[in-house]
Amino acid sequence: MAFRPETAVHLRALAEVLLRGPSPLTSAERESIAAFVSSRNDCTFCYLSHRAAAAHHDGGDYTFVDTVTAGAADARVSPKLRALLAIAGKVQQGGKQVTANDVAEARAHGATDVEIHDTVLIAAAFCMYNRYVDGLATFTPTDPAAYDPMGKRLATHGYVGLGQPHRPSEVTSSTKG
Amino acid sequence: MAFRPETAVHLRALAEVLLRGPSPLTSAERESIAAFVSSRNDCTFCYLSHRAAAAHHDGGDYTFVDTVTAGAADARVSPKLRALLAIAGKVQQGGKQVTANDVAEARAHGATDVEIHDTVLIAAAFCMYNRYVDGLATFTPTDPAAYDPMGKRLATHGYVGLGQPHRPSEVTSSTKG
Repeated sequence: MAFRPETAVHLRALAEVLLRGPSPLTSAERESIAAFVSSRNDCTFCYLSHRAAAAHHDGGDYTFVDTVTAGAADARVSPKLRALLAIAGKVQQGGKQVTANDVAEARAHGATDVEIHDTVLIAAAFCMYNRYVDGLATFTPTDPAAYDPMGKRLATHGYVGLGQPHRPSEVTSSTKG
Repeated sequence: MAFRPETAVHLRALAEVLLRGPSPLTSAERESIAAFVSSRNDCTFCYLSHRAAAAHHDGGDYTFVDTVTAGAADARVSPKLRALLAIAGKVQQGGKQVTANDVAEARAHGATDVEIHDTVLIAAAFCMYNRYVDGLATFTPTDPAAYDPMGKRLATHGYVGLGQPHRPSEVTSSTKG
């Protein structure tokens, strides 16, 4: 992002409104959807950083986000959120995978149109962020603990106007090759 | 986009800078990359609208964009652009599909880091836009001619602050189901 500030400003602003702006979904839920999609896209950098952000919207507790990304049935994950995650999983595969039945199922569990919209757009946006990060071969630490301080900053200060502090201390970015 | 203006403003601004902002790639080339990726994602709405925009950066001539999206070897498509399209095609499949060899090939044909960056981000962004459009079941006319006036407006006026005129006259959006 530092390489092309003209585009980074919009990418950060989109993340801010999607994950921390007004929404009927909590930021912990939205960051968990982001982590879930990033995990399915095998993007370690986005998965671990948004996993940490989700945890720090929950007092630093990783239980909820890890339950969500594992796709496990658990009382902490409501039937509504489970139905929204099913939609997010379809979007990860491709927009046309989402069926009217998926949407009807989410509505039957109380999801509103805004919640369905936000789920689709978060899942779609992470299909972009994940490809951007991995397509340019961003240096990616694999120790989840390296992402915890970043997650805390993201949960506390967000995505806009922070500059370098978004990253784990040793992360740098370079084009492949 | 009309349903959620809070996110639409950033989606439009990102499209504007990606496709019409300063870049060593022409807008015709960038819109053609967008149409190419949208075609591979089977997103008719985005494919036909960005195909039309590309044509209207070229005086309304669809020859160049149709050559690009067909992936055909043709003197109109330079070896550099062909190498960038190979990268865009890999990004469409997943960020990790892009190899150091793909980047070396593009550089060998004269592509700069900015051109490689912009290609990766355009391809990644259309993996988002395509999923957003199809995940929410946007009404999609299938007659390419219906998109020509929209393409002309996009090529002339861009993506920001236009409101409704972005769309073919009969297009409306609704959530699936």
